[in-house]
Amino acid sequence: MRQKYRKSPLAPKKANKVSSIQGIELYTYCANLYDKSRNDVAIFIFKEKGSIAEVFTQSSMRSCTLDWNEKALKKKEVQAIIINSGNANTFTGKKGHQSLIKISELVSNMFNLSKSKIFFASTGVIGEEFPEQKIINAIRKNKIKNNNWMDAAKAIMTTDTFPKAISSKTKVDNKVVTITGITKGSGMIEPNMATMLGFIFIDLEIPQKILQALLKQLNAKSFNRISVDGDESTNDTVILASSNKIKLKNKINSINDKRINSLKISLYKVFSSLSEQIVRDGEGATKLIKIKVKKAKNILQAEKIARSIANSNLFKTAIYGEDANWGRIIMAIGKTYEKINQSKLKIYFGDYLVAMNGKANTKINNSDIKKYLGQKEVKIQIDLAIGNSHADILTCDLSHKYIDINASYKS
Amino acid sequence: MRQKYRKSPLAPKKANKVSSIQGIELYTYCANLYDKSRNDVAIFIFKEKGSIAEVFTQSSMRSCTLDWNEKALKKKEVQAIIINSGNANTFTGKKGHQSLIKISELVSNMFNLSKSKIFFASTGVIGEEFPEQKIINAIRKNKIKNNNWMDAAKAIMTTDTFPKAISSKTKVDNKVVTITGITKGSGMIEPNMATMLGFIFIDLEIPQKILQALLKQLNAKSFNRISVDGDESTNDTVILASSNKIKLKNKINSINDKRINSLKISLYKVFSSLSEQIVRDGEGATKLIKIKVKKAKNILQAEKIARSIANSNLFKTAIYGEDANWGRIIMAIGKTYEKINQSKLKIYFGDYLVAMNGKANTKINNSDIKKYLGQKEVKIQIDLAIGNSHADILTCDLSHKYIDINASYKS
Repeated sequence: MRQKYRKSPLAPKKANKVSSIQGIELYTYCANLYDKSRNDVAIFIFKEKGSIAEVFTQSSMRSCTLDWNEKALKKKEVQAIIINSGNANTFTGKKGHQSLIKISELVSNMFNLSKSKIFFASTGVIGEEFPEQKIINAIRKNKIKNNNWMDAAKAIMTTDTFPKAISSKTKVDNKVVTITGITKGSGMIEPNMATMLGFIFIDLEIPQKILQALLKQLNAKSFNRISVDGDESTNDTVILASSNKIKLKNKINSINDKRINSLKISLYKVFSSLSEQIVRDGEGATKLIKIKVKKAKNILQAEKIARSIANSNLFKTAIYGEDANWGRIIMAIGKTYEKINQSKLKIYFGDYLVAMNGKANTKINNSDIKKYLGQKEVKIQIDLAIGNSHADILTCDLSHKYIDINASYKS
Repeated sequence: MRQKYRKSPLAPKKANKVSSIQGIELYTYCANLYDKSRNDVAIFIFKEKGSIAEVFTQSSMRSCTLDWNEKALKKKEVQAIIINSGNANTFTGKKGHQSLIKISELVSNMFNLSKSKIFFASTGVIGEEFPEQKIINAIRKNKIKNNNWMDAAKAIMTTDTFPKAISSKTKVDNKVVTITGITKGSGMIEPNMATMLGFIFIDLEIPQKILQALLKQLNAKSFNRISVDGDESTNDTVILASSNKIKLKNKINSINDKRINSLKISLYKVFSSLSEQIVRDGEGATKLIKIKVKKAKNILQAEKIARSIANSNLFKTAIYGEDANWGRIIMAIGKTYEKINQSKLKIYFGDYLVAMNGKANTKINNSDIKKYLGQKEVKIQIDLAIGNSHADILTCDLSHKYIDINASYKS
């Protein structure tokens, strides 16, 4: 049995308040995939013609749920999203796919909707038989709407120690638009998406094409800029969906429509908060690490170096140990094979310039840095001094607790 | 101060006996880079015209010792190799290079040899001032030859918990040829070389060109096929050097000369043993993991997949926990983005076939696998069933002790 872990020390002090989204109904279930104390299935039902955009893991061993969604996505319409934790429905053979057919038949009958407009997302153990019957039994028993969307965030948790959700409101053409996002994931988190599910809902009518373009842009700067352990999952997905409930006189027809400028900012805040919440719940995390690589030749180089640092076990354990061992940053930069001007390179821990002119800055007081590293949030800045591009990556440290959690996840 | 760690549970029961190599003298020193209880500098002096071949880390932030050696290598001759632990001489500015000049001047005067035929290798903390004076003082004081080559293996240790060395003898043209190799490294070990120094010496006269070609071949199948933590160091190097003491009537002029067939096998055994010893001393390792990917489309694909598994923290912690969570192998295969036929793929833990036909093999008894994973050596085999190529990677698990060691290395 899986153990339960104490809430991450990096968890937000207070849970966010989340709003439900007009035109979307939430149903939550306990299918007993973990135990009777928690929900493990959530279904979102779109009352009208919902729009949906989705990005997928690049894994070549992905879950059959993502194959299903990729097909469904062609219809550009969504009537239901069914999410379960406890089992990833990955490497589950033909039976895994058949389970999706059966569950979609049940849900389409119960809620009177089209099977082909149902989307799935699963997270949990890989390679174990999908608990189709348990899920079917649970769904059958309950048709009571849940207005507390935080419960959806709770139902999709795996090793997460706190539910992750946020809402934001903004105005478009003088109409109030609401955004609510939920997400999960604390292990297998890597830049190119991870055991990470994200669902962001809005009520404003937006054509699917624009929704997909927005999702791609937002995802690149949020979920794709975080790393917990460098492992990328078979099930990652982020969905941006609209109930299309709030209609404008003049419809939005372009991603450059100025009326959605403030919406874009609000969406970015939601994406950004959700992805930061994932890192704050990184398995075993005791410190949130913000890495900025600036003055790089180009964005690709900045990202490559920032990710190399973020994914280095040696760097992450040093930060866990509050050890100003920036030599490991040098190592992580070097192993990208990117050409660097050592004598121009600067490394900062917070405001402390620890390395410059190709060597240690001996003017820095080590006890000051030690004190700085004692904080829960640590900023690392690398100034390459060879160009004008920059990239930010969020990560966390690598602790004893990461080992505790992952040495006993399955059995 | 650095702590001392108990000997790895994977360490060989008995230390190998090592032979000195005719025509090469060893000098060892305590420069007090750690404390007075151990040696930290070793110098090999080649009495005649020695040949040398070297491969380097690909890191773009490499140690100035490697820049020095790359230049020296052009002369294709070696008179001395000076190795120190305790400081990597990396990111040490101009002063780091000046130290090499001073030390090489001292050694060339003391031993009457050419400065430009001296090679360096350093391992230890990055970015701290190179302890030039301590090393100079130590070398000045001692000119007593050390016939115990195991002491060289001891002098180059950093977080290593046992010295790593091996000797082998073979015949070439009816003359006995001796090979002795020493190596170090237990963290920052990644496929493309790591904080890993390797020095392999022979006494047979071999032209430098053939030596370099042999080194490249041998290294690709040994030191480049191991991984401890996926971090690649700034200082990695492997040197293959000959004293040229044993001369054949008809010189070796081609790498395909049949007379060196048995030598090649002996060399491979030495390279192979040394690289396995590194993994056996992987920081915090409790299990040696042998990963074989077979029936791949090509060697590159096999290697890529084997390395992805070997470098996955989630996989490594699962093995540490003796947890048959092969879903993490599925994940690690998937994140290579290589096209896989899920329904043909087979995964073995030892002889136990745990996954086939695109799903779990339910006929396998979990307690049998649990028992198998309780061993100190674990074999993982992936049969891709799409081609004829294979690759082997050696790695170790990721344990609490890895965190202990690396959260407090520097301070």
